[in-house]
Amino acid sequence: MDKKKFEKIISEIKGLKSDLFGKDFLLTWEKTPDELKQTLLVAEALKFLRTNNVSTKLYDSGLGISNFRDNSTRTRFSFASACNMLGIEVMDLDEGKSQIAHGETVRETANMISFMADVIGIRDDMYLGAGNAYMREVGEALDEGHKEGVLEQRPSIVNLQCDIDHPTQSMADLAHLKQMFGSLENLKGKKIAMTWAYSPSYGKPLSVPQGIIGLMTRFGMDVELAFPEGYGLIPEVIEVAKANAKASGGSFKISNSMEEAFKDADIVYPKSWAPFEVMGKRTELLRAKDMKGLDELEKVCLTNNAKFKNWECTEEKMKLTKGGKALYMHCLPADITGVSCKEGEVAGSVFERYRLDTYREASWKPYIIAAMIVNSQFEDAAKVLEKLADKDKSRVKTKK
Amino acid sequence: MDKKKFEKIISEIKGLKSDLFGKDFLLTWEKTPDELKQTLLVAEALKFLRTNNVSTKLYDSGLGISNFRDNSTRTRFSFASACNMLGIEVMDLDEGKSQIAHGETVRETANMISFMADVIGIRDDMYLGAGNAYMREVGEALDEGHKEGVLEQRPSIVNLQCDIDHPTQSMADLAHLKQMFGSLENLKGKKIAMTWAYSPSYGKPLSVPQGIIGLMTRFGMDVELAFPEGYGLIPEVIEVAKANAKASGGSFKISNSMEEAFKDADIVYPKSWAPFEVMGKRTELLRAKDMKGLDELEKVCLTNNAKFKNWECTEEKMKLTKGGKALYMHCLPADITGVSCKEGEVAGSVFERYRLDTYREASWKPYIIAAMIVNSQFEDAAKVLEKLADKDKSRVKTKK
Amino acid sequence: MDKKKFEKIISEIKGLKSDLFGKDFLLTWEKTPDELKQTLLVAEALKFLRTNNVSTKLYDSGLGISNFRDNSTRTRFSFASACNMLGIEVMDLDEGKSQIAHGETVRETANMISFMADVIGIRDDMYLGAGNAYMREVGEALDEGHKEGVLEQRPSIVNLQCDIDHPTQSMADLAHLKQMFGSLENLKGKKIAMTWAYSPSYGKPLSVPQGIIGLMTRFGMDVELAFPEGYGLIPEVIEVAKANAKASGGSFKISNSMEEAFKDADIVYPKSWAPFEVMGKRTELLRAKDMKGLDELEKVCLTNNAKFKNWECTEEKMKLTKGGKALYMHCLPADITGVSCKEGEVAGSVFERYRLDTYREASWKPYIIAAMIVNSQFEDAAKVLEKLADKDKSRVKTKK
Repeated sequence: MDKKKFEKIISEIKGLKSDLFGKDFLLTWEKTPDELKQTLLVAEALKFLRTNNVSTKLYDSGLGISNFRDNSTRTRFSFASACNMLGIEVMDLDEGKSQIAHGETVRETANMISFMADVIGIRDDMYLGAGNAYMREVGEALDEGHKEGVLEQRPSIVNLQCDIDHPTQSMADLAHLKQMFGSLENLKGKKIAMTWAYSPSYGKPLSVPQGIIGLMTRFGMDVELAFPEGYGLIPEVIEVAKANAKASGGSFKISNSMEEAFKDADIVYPKSWAPFEVMGKRTELLRAKDMKGLDELEKVCLTNNAKFKNWECTEEKMKLTKGGKALYMHCLPADITGVSCKEGEVAGSVFERYRLDTYREASWKPYIIAAMIVNSQFEDAAKVLEKLADKDKSRVKTKK
Repeated sequence: MDKKKFEKIISEIKGLKSDLFGKDFLLTWEKTPDELKQTLLVAEALKFLRTNNVSTKLYDSGLGISNFRDNSTRTRFSFASACNMLGIEVMDLDEGKSQIAHGETVRETANMISFMADVIGIRDDMYLGAGNAYMREVGEALDEGHKEGVLEQRPSIVNLQCDIDHPTQSMADLAHLKQMFGSLENLKGKKIAMTWAYSPSYGKPLSVPQGIIGLMTRFGMDVELAFPEGYGLIPEVIEVAKANAKASGGSFKISNSMEEAFKDADIVYPKSWAPFEVMGKRTELLRAKDMKGLDELEKVCLTNNAKFKNWECTEEKMKLTKGGKALYMHCLPADITGVSCKEGEVAGSVFERYRLDTYREASWKPYIIAAMIVNSQFEDAAKVLEKLADKDKSRVKTKK
Repeated sequence: MDKKKFEKIISEIKGLKSDLFGKDFLLTWEKTPDELKQTLLVAEALKFLRTNNVSTKLYDSGLGISNFRDNSTRTRFSFASACNMLGIEVMDLDEGKSQIAHGETVRETANMISFMADVIGIRDDMYLGAGNAYMREVGEALDEGHKEGVLEQRPSIVNLQCDIDHPTQSMADLAHLKQMFGSLENLKGKKIAMTWAYSPSYGKPLSVPQGIIGLMTRFGMDVELAFPEGYGLIPEVIEVAKANAKASGGSFKISNSMEEAFKDADIVYPKSWAPFEVMGKRTELLRAKDMKGLDELEKVCLTNNAKFKNWECTEEKMKLTKGGKALYMHCLPADITGVSCKEGEVAGSVFERYRLDTYREASWKPYIIAAMIVNSQFEDAAKVLEKLADKDKSRVKTKK
């Protein structure tokens, strides 16, 4: 165990000014650069400890509630991994099984599930205008419950994907970039192309592209967003990205050409999403349980999507990037041409070249979530991490 | 950490004569007053330790099986919280997923799931005459398995709601009353009105009102049960309540008037339920999988319910109570007029005034369940609690 | 705690030559006799420690992924028990809920769920030719992920039942036989009759009879497989059994008579299964989602099954066995005539006489799974077991 590496991380954390304690993690742009840096550093410290078989359990017991209002494998396992690593047991709030399905109010349920909870992870990305708002509503109920003595502790909320942002994904992506490029400093002036890509499926949420343009503009990168006409994102997030770029000394540009975005890019992130307007209509139809309307909307959208099959990350397009060697990124699962679908977001050969990199990218997510929990739950993250290292309790008893 | 408060609780436990060790918790009226007192006290001790960040883990490993034969959010999370607090991991026995659905006998399954189990929590409240009986059948199978060396330990059964009683709810309610009124002693001569209330839904189990009249008559309270004609409870439980009241020096009265019951009440518990006879018919139809019959029964019942919309806990009715300030109680979720339904059990303004109190009422449930486990699993509960306090291991590593 | 018994087990383990570390457990016939013996011994040591209230936690945190592609109660709980006993938290990979249902590749998912996983238990027995192959595909993905630095640890795969073998069942059966007969040595020359039996249901997997003939032929037993004409097993496994018997000094015989197989048998294992050819056709129909074809196949099979209702383990047939007292075995749940079905695999009175024995047989499964995990994850199993015993940390704090 190379303690110097660990000590360097801790010393960096100590040099930051953060106000993460007692706060939920709902949008990256509500956090300061120092707070984002601390999240990365705590994730790195936890990864270091675990890799060196040092126990990272900060809890002797406690519950982590996972509230998934949409399907999930990756994020579900990442949240479970993060909780487990810290000593928190995961309890699923399955709204199908539970009485929430019977019209119970959010406020009440938030308290009922939280008597022993230290963290609540929520995924709610289906309804435009509702997901992030739901998380805040839960947060207010927890604030009241804690203040009024109903809850002995105030569990931290972690946004596991909403209609606006996907902070655990974008922060894992940033951790990956930091590792691949050596430092956050090295990302300055690097060009990242966040582009739409063709997919044979429909209704993919906007949170990933929005999360990427909202976060990568914070560290002086040149962010270029490209999509076919009509595939815009939430206007407010576009404004956030613009303001971020200005503040960080980077740039933010929108185009309607994948080729233009790829040109000289250091990093490319081609990924499908549904147009903002479609997601709005879809939300209305879902609320009205208008299945026929949803079917019709899907047909129209897929027909429209099909006009843009050339928005594929091919070998030819990769040649346009910096030295033809831009780093390819994806939140997974990707629609891979000839592998998982006939025609998709990325050519089989391109994906295969970066496949293990996308796995490494994903591998940061449990640590990012754990870091968000630690920062929100412990006033002095550096200190508790040092205690873990000093105690040097093994995670696995003896490997030999 | 105010150790004196804790020591007082422990000393009270030591003064009681209980025979809870090795016994299941199936009906409150099978327990002596001392045993009920011990359950409350152990719950208070556990709450004290946890609030003071002292680890309450009595188990290093072990499983808690949750067997929910009806939907549940609150009780499911309460059981999980109780187990987690003690160091027991929850495993759901999902009879949909499992081979029990294929005709396997209760006896066999009880053993198959219990090789490493320390506790089994069962909710089975749909079938009149069957829920509590099922729990006893499981208990007998566990007795045999343990005696015959199949099971290394005999897991304790906790009744998480059956057709007859809902002991974890009524005991949590009693813990709440003890806290609100200062002591069990102070409850003597207090009037509690357990009344039916209108709800737009149907088929609510009888276990809550039965649990309340079966328990609150144990401590010298004046218990008044009120319901519209035809909404009676299981006759045997009525007899239990009568006998309890006689023995404890309290009283038990039945009326058909919500107003009469509310008059001068110190506590009101207005809650909907389905008539005993309807639950009986429903059980037959459910067993016969007669969906048409169930639909018809529902229609008839809802029409009948609608005749009693005036059975609502309104501000006017609250004025009839002692000083207009009776404590409102509910097991949640309540059908709140203008909030969760058009017309329901309780007026919005009344509920809102007591909302946080109902949350506090519910917050006792995890501790009550944990106390039931501890008392059944440990011969000397006071001693193991003292050991926890002496060791003073933190639940959360360091909060600063 | 009789330490001598434990020390004897440890000393036996030390005398074996095994290469289980870092290997998955997919088929018993891929393991040497010493490796199988070590699996039994480690299971016995773990059982000894737990029975004596000694903590068996080798992990401070970590995940055990359970991937059940078919219904299960027993094996699901056995896997959860094994993980819990070692300190590993179970996470279900529910492919209905997860995005795997959306066409995601096995390779990717295997990595995505494994960032913090120490073990993956897989049940995949529905598709002939696919289950075991799927496990190997997952294993290769994990090998790559670990080698390439995606995964910090390589989780061990445990086969919880596939199309070919059911090693956790057959090894639990062997542990039971070792206990009932005193030693593996005592099993030499004993006759075991693995026979088909009539069942009113259809499509039961072949993995149990295949697992039994593939394992029991390893230790010098006389194994007789009997089934009605047309109810054959996978030919390759028959070859394995033949070769095993030759190598171990036992024998392997196939007949078409239950009576002949039972004659002078020391052990009988009557259990229904679907013919190999039917399972093949069924696999094709399942893949094609040909529900009509599946219905027709079921009808044909049940009609065919009905010709062999006399393949029942009756009192009369039991009289044919050695002294009329052969040990009856079953993996459970059995189709018991007059109990769980009208006409089934075994007479009610025969089953009842051996019922508790079948429970004891099943009780080995959690320990066998835990042993497979320990042997695969720890280079020196004897040493880590000794450490557990030396530390002598209680599983349950104090029972008195």
